[in-house]
Amino acid sequence: MNTIEMNGMGDTICAVSTPQGRGGIAVIRVSGPQALDIVQRCWQGKPLADMATHTVHLGNVVDHAGELLDQVVLTIFRAPNSFTGEDVVELTCHGSIWIQQQVIHALIDAGCRHAMAGEFTRRAFANGRMDLSQAEAVADVIEAQSRVAHHVAMNQMRGRYSDELHGLRDKLLRFVSLIELELDFSEEDVTFADRGEVTALARDIHALISRLADSYRDGNAIRNGMPVAIVGQTNAGKSTLLNALLRDDRALVSDIHGTTRDTIEDTIVMGGTLFRFIDTAGIRQSSDTVERMGIERSWQAIDKANVVLWVVDVTSADTSMARDILARCKGKALIAVLNKTDLDDDIATRSELNDILPEGTQVVAMSAKNVDDVEALRALIVEAATQPEVDADAVIVTNARHYEALIRAREALTRAIDGLDNGLSGDLLGQDIRECLHWLGSITGEVTTDDILGEIFSHFCIGK
Amino acid sequence: MNTIEMNGMGDTICAVSTPQGRGGIAVIRVSGPQALDIVQRCWQGKPLADMATHTVHLGNVVDHAGELLDQVVLTIFRAPNSFTGEDVVELTCHGSIWIQQQVIHALIDAGCRHAMAGEFTRRAFANGRMDLSQAEAVADVIEAQSRVAHHVAMNQMRGRYSDELHGLRDKLLRFVSLIELELDFSEEDVTFADRGEVTALARDIHALISRLADSYRDGNAIRNGMPVAIVGQTNAGKSTLLNALLRDDRALVSDIHGTTRDTIEDTIVMGGTLFRFIDTAGIRQSSDTVERMGIERSWQAIDKANVVLWVVDVTSADTSMARDILARCKGKALIAVLNKTDLDDDIATRSELNDILPEGTQVVAMSAKNVDDVEALRALIVEAATQPEVDADAVIVTNARHYEALIRAREALTRAIDGLDNGLSGDLLGQDIRECLHWLGSITGEVTTDDILGEIFSHFCIGK
Repeated sequence: MNTIEMNGMGDTICAVSTPQGRGGIAVIRVSGPQALDIVQRCWQGKPLADMATHTVHLGNVVDHAGELLDQVVLTIFRAPNSFTGEDVVELTCHGSIWIQQQVIHALIDAGCRHAMAGEFTRRAFANGRMDLSQAEAVADVIEAQSRVAHHVAMNQMRGRYSDELHGLRDKLLRFVSLIELELDFSEEDVTFADRGEVTALARDIHALISRLADSYRDGNAIRNGMPVAIVGQTNAGKSTLLNALLRDDRALVSDIHGTTRDTIEDTIVMGGTLFRFIDTAGIRQSSDTVERMGIERSWQAIDKANVVLWVVDVTSADTSMARDILARCKGKALIAVLNKTDLDDDIATRSELNDILPEGTQVVAMSAKNVDDVEALRALIVEAATQPEVDADAVIVTNARHYEALIRAREALTRAIDGLDNGLSGDLLGQDIRECLHWLGSITGEVTTDDILGEIFSHFCIGK
Repeated sequence: MNTIEMNGMGDTICAVSTPQGRGGIAVIRVSGPQALDIVQRCWQGKPLADMATHTVHLGNVVDHAGELLDQVVLTIFRAPNSFTGEDVVELTCHGSIWIQQQVIHALIDAGCRHAMAGEFTRRAFANGRMDLSQAEAVADVIEAQSRVAHHVAMNQMRGRYSDELHGLRDKLLRFVSLIELELDFSEEDVTFADRGEVTALARDIHALISRLADSYRDGNAIRNGMPVAIVGQTNAGKSTLLNALLRDDRALVSDIHGTTRDTIEDTIVMGGTLFRFIDTAGIRQSSDTVERMGIERSWQAIDKANVVLWVVDVTSADTSMARDILARCKGKALIAVLNKTDLDDDIATRSELNDILPEGTQVVAMSAKNVDDVEALRALIVEAATQPEVDADAVIVTNARHYEALIRAREALTRAIDGLDNGLSGDLLGQDIRECLHWLGSITGEVTTDDILGEIFSHFCIGK
């Protein structure tokens, strides 16, 4: 049982847990200490007190005036054997919007409070049914848009990530115990602990944390989409190309929430991989302050991208920024798009580009208005992206909060290792190790403030 | 058990039964003779064979390669104690679209067929779990947008309507037995049955069928929305008024499917009642064939409406069609809307209208562009509509198919009564009575063709 204080934990909460809208059926979930009593007040059927846990029962839901709202199937989960660890009752009603609203109203009239976003999962965490990284993975599982993203989120939800962190924590505690052994005997002026063994252990832990932190680059691409920056000079046709790349699959396109709108981002699944296309401001020399800020963001987009589409207008001879752009793309999968061949198909005039392009760069002469050209470009992008091979057993960090905690844990550990190298005393080392433990603990929620929890669960959907 | 042949009744079917989209959880329903075997192939957990009916179990769903798809809650309903009357398994999975798709794919790989629209309910009907009018009410319950519509549909689903029809059928069968008694003894030239008693019974049945058929006007208004026709001369501002009436509640506006697009219809809930506004072509003398067809539809819209908004442009002096329109509105709740007061507020110039308006007509001088004016008009419409008082115990016909069957049943019975009056022989009367019985039976599905069933269930959502 985690000891975090939660507002309204004693309340019994309710919400529609199935997707919004009309369907054949909908599920309304009730959780809390009064769940059975409250549902009983709206229920005509076998008394809830007589029901065994994990059984289902047909009956009627009525409002406070006793008017029939719906015939429903009731499922009962008695604490602690439920998702939240509390008494839970699920009502499967007919999927009309009207009925869903009325049943919720009836439950609120009978004493429920409407659940906040993620509140059911938050209770599961508070009641020790899962740790924080597992709870966060529940949201990732629901958001997953590709097989790989789903796989990674499922692993995290099932505790593989937590296991890895607990292993790290055990190693750190062994490190602490070795240091403390030294402290205990320090007055006898004996360096009891083998500093060589301690240092080796610290470097081992450092390597493990680094591996996890480094996996975030892949993990972020898996969860939020492989970043593909579309860059080039103004009016090279970048936005037209973005629209062309997305158009056929508009139904799969989603907004990335919380990103600035200065660069336009949209995600799309191609070849089983989620891609995040970032359309950028045109790059050129500019004395306008606002424009220069936009251009700075374009440079940053290149830095963050795995794949860069450098769009060149073949009808324009201006290559003034070409060398700057190419220099910035070093180490990225680069595709040079010679665009607007519908206006000028004499791309031989652009042969000067060949002189400056790095060896191995893909060059595509095309028109963003030609469906076949766009299709060929898509295939090239999928190929260039080389989705990281996800080992089913590998633990991958997909969450920015976890990444930050790992970076901070590594910083603290680096200080401790430096201290070891410099012969620092055990009590000074202990402070850095405790900080390292703190940051690792914040990932699984062993040390977390209410504010952070509020922030995490507010991104959940209602009803989960 | 109904004896209707159904295609693919031996198949085991699956579908997502909760609303489309992403949510906390989703429910996938599997029904059919192989439901337990098929789900077992995708299941890691307690064997389904060992599960009691109406119990829930936590476990994993895997695909055919054994890869984990999701941790789910499985609910088992053993035949005949399920919605369909067959073995049913429901899988409550995480509500990601990706997981929902993958679990459906895994079930299909394991031997399921994807369910067609309404196929679960159709099986419930075929297996005698409900009659046809009850099955149709399932769809109405899901579609219901107002308390009254929900109430009427729930009553029908719970069999109150069926009970009424069975009562009618019993009376008809008694009628037949009286007639047959006469036939049996006809050679002895004895008019055994008291023709007075037989006639009284026939008139009683006729009155009951008429009451049901007459309830359709209210029932249709409840289910599809109280029809409000917006009529007037061209350019009186009818469409602007429609948009103004609907604008603030656009979220609640829905298309009426299957209606012609010649008149524009939209529904909206105001004051707890569903209204269906019908914007019509402007009425004027015209020699254009196509326009005259449109105007003919406007006249028909008036005939079908409960409330007529007659829109008059106060800036125009043309009242040439006024008398024709008013004549057609006889018996309707009529509201005269003197529109465009923003252009000309000297409505006294329109006093000639007062001379021709029927007594008690509501007259509103307003501008469709003034929010307060529109709000006041809404209140008038709600008042004028006088939603029929729905007696909780009254049976109301809401379904056009049922209405037609009742009309045909009444026609047959009318012929039988005429026959009785004219001293027709019992065997001739029997033919009309059998036809009457046939039409009543078609409502509850005792006599129905596969084509009709296909048509009825195709309007359901998938997963119900």
